[in-house]
Amino acid sequence: MKAKPVGPIPSGYRAIDGELAIGGHKASDLVAKAGRTPLFVYSRDLLDARVAQLRAALPQRIGINYAIKANPHPDVIRHMAPLVDGFDIASAGELRMTAEAGIDPVRVSFAGPGKRDEELEEAIAAGVTLNCESAGEAERSLAIGQRIGKSPRIAIRVNPDFELKGSGMKMGGGAKPFGVDADKVPGLAKHVIAEGAEWRGLHIFTGSQALSAEAIVEAQSNVLELADKLSGEIGEPLPKLNMGGGFGIPYFPGDEPLDLLAVGEALHERVAGLPAALADTELCVELGRYLVGEAGVYLCRVIDRKDSHGVTYLVTDGGLHHQLAASGNFGTVVRRNYPVAIANRFDAEPDEIVNVVGCLCTPLDRLADLARLPHAEVSDLVAVFCAGAYGATASPSAFLGHGPAAEMLV
Amino acid sequence: MKAKPVGPIPSGYRAIDGELAIGGHKASDLVAKAGRTPLFVYSRDLLDARVAQLRAALPQRIGINYAIKANPHPDVIRHMAPLVDGFDIASAGELRMTAEAGIDPVRVSFAGPGKRDEELEEAIAAGVTLNCESAGEAERSLAIGQRIGKSPRIAIRVNPDFELKGSGMKMGGGAKPFGVDADKVPGLAKHVIAEGAEWRGLHIFTGSQALSAEAIVEAQSNVLELADKLSGEIGEPLPKLNMGGGFGIPYFPGDEPLDLLAVGEALHERVAGLPAALADTELCVELGRYLVGEAGVYLCRVIDRKDSHGVTYLVTDGGLHHQLAASGNFGTVVRRNYPVAIANRFDAEPDEIVNVVGCLCTPLDRLADLARLPHAEVSDLVAVFCAGAYGATASPSAFLGHGPAAEMLV
Repeated sequence: MKAKPVGPIPSGYRAIDGELAIGGHKASDLVAKAGRTPLFVYSRDLLDARVAQLRAALPQRIGINYAIKANPHPDVIRHMAPLVDGFDIASAGELRMTAEAGIDPVRVSFAGPGKRDEELEEAIAAGVTLNCESAGEAERSLAIGQRIGKSPRIAIRVNPDFELKGSGMKMGGGAKPFGVDADKVPGLAKHVIAEGAEWRGLHIFTGSQALSAEAIVEAQSNVLELADKLSGEIGEPLPKLNMGGGFGIPYFPGDEPLDLLAVGEALHERVAGLPAALADTELCVELGRYLVGEAGVYLCRVIDRKDSHGVTYLVTDGGLHHQLAASGNFGTVVRRNYPVAIANRFDAEPDEIVNVVGCLCTPLDRLADLARLPHAEVSDLVAVFCAGAYGATASPSAFLGHGPAAEMLV
Repeated sequence: MKAKPVGPIPSGYRAIDGELAIGGHKASDLVAKAGRTPLFVYSRDLLDARVAQLRAALPQRIGINYAIKANPHPDVIRHMAPLVDGFDIASAGELRMTAEAGIDPVRVSFAGPGKRDEELEEAIAAGVTLNCESAGEAERSLAIGQRIGKSPRIAIRVNPDFELKGSGMKMGGGAKPFGVDADKVPGLAKHVIAEGAEWRGLHIFTGSQALSAEAIVEAQSNVLELADKLSGEIGEPLPKLNMGGGFGIPYFPGDEPLDLLAVGEALHERVAGLPAALADTELCVELGRYLVGEAGVYLCRVIDRKDSHGVTYLVTDGGLHHQLAASGNFGTVVRRNYPVAIANRFDAEPDEIVNVVGCLCTPLDRLADLARLPHAEVSDLVAVFCAGAYGATASPSAFLGHGPAAEMLV
């Protein structure tokens, strides 16, 4: 039987007494502390390290926003609060999460193509910046501001004519549900400014999960050029420009980490030569997955080891109800293996080829196909890496009644 | 712009005052009663009608089991309780749901490849039948029975060497995480019987979501033949045989409803000519999606109507956080449109081509691509059909913080 490769284990994980350690704690100790599996563990050290890498690479004047949709666990939000500059939210639910973490609404901006009136009102009342997605949304925001006697803080989300090349998800270029087509932005901006909105500038998001520095550098150049052009057409300086994100992490065999230094170098050059219209503009990048994705591990326990027609299955108590993307069922066309390991035999040599599956009664519930791993028995722990972003909340946790996983920041 | 076809609207839905009516209630009235959108509505009438169709078509001695994973809403389970013969569960969580609905555990059987010891104990203590998935699970069940002083009721789930042809998900044929390979079943059955388990027979599940009566008839024939053969090898009559399900519903353009009468006719023949070993065996089919899928509608509201590069988008307050499968991101390779309609203009002629999207800030959140629909404006209601199965609980309801949809049985 031919093994299928698994994705690269992120750096920062090592063995203690032969076991995977996260934040200096052995996997089995973390499970004992949580009292159960499956368990998501998020590492403070790795979150800190990633922000430090970004700070070192990027020009000082480029702020870092955390898009909490990637991982809205309360402890993670609280941990990120002093580390990053701003927070991006996508619903009033997420606004409440930032409020509960004590984050000043002035640091928060709200994007999302389907903001309901109640959500707009909550955000305007709190003083959050709205990344306005359409002329209709602008009108509703102005009317609500009028009604509650508070000027809405409005930025316009731009649907640019270019995209982030090679990104996992394209969010610009051609017809899109996101933002306002670039050519209609100046008119709308003038209108909201004239109607008394507090003008907060532009949000230009071009894509996500790109591993090519070159593609990101090109997109950022295009974003700055477009922002300069639009600012001129609007006839007002841009108080702020959210340049979007798109920084990817390696998930799959052959994926190479993003060359962050190359991105930083190019940004230093751009910032040194900013056009006059952007000279005083507050600049930021918006990152979710890149900040938290590699800092999380999903731990589940082997419940059964069985053979079927010569194939060995490790059946775990985890599955797609917690890790939908790892099962290959979320925005994926061809399923590939995430990085996985036998957590309590982390430094052992692989000596067999197995299918790792979840506990759900559906053939979709696969965690690793034909992975070469050290021998594992019932009660051993399986680790699925890259579980810090789009894991717990991006999975159907009610499916089949097993309930959500435990989560822990260490 | 060329429209893409949408799936066929299930029968049983009609207009009252021009509006989609569900169970005799207008969509807008149901939303008013729920107090919000998005809303799943499940129709008692359509649930009843589907069971009546099955009773009329199938031989009387074929029982009908409801696999509650398809829709575990408490009111749905309670409504199904007197209509069907048995219930299939896939976790201890689902066991508790049947208990809360007052269902006698004798009517319940428990399948799933990763049953934890605590789950086995809860099920054995309650007297639920275990559809045992491996030799290891059998040993654990026997040991737990011993420890708590109660004979486990054990059926063996068989991994057959054939599959349900043309099924959406194949669950038999070759190496599988489900069940015990057919050739190992007799040995394991003799062992559990010798060890004092209460022998409950076999569970042979070959696939799901098949629309071809011919394929289902063939699979059922194979199931009966295999059960006869295994029963002979075990040397004990089969108290019960769960023949699996696989009855599909039409979701996509061109899908034709299953010819239930043809399935019933063939089953009448088979039942008339049953081999001696199965003469006294209790027979049942296990259905989930077929019982409830077409009885549910997902209603969401248009929040924004916008144009991007000449394409019209209806942005709704619904999305993949409630209807993952309809977005094309759950076990689908090529995205196709589910049946959709403008609920409050249900009898109007289509007069435009639009993209219907959800409110989530991700390009994955699509409800209908280039659908030909009657003109809709902000505050109109969009209906997505075939939402009764694998909707609310099979979707990542925590994603982006919008929270779960309302659900209502009418």
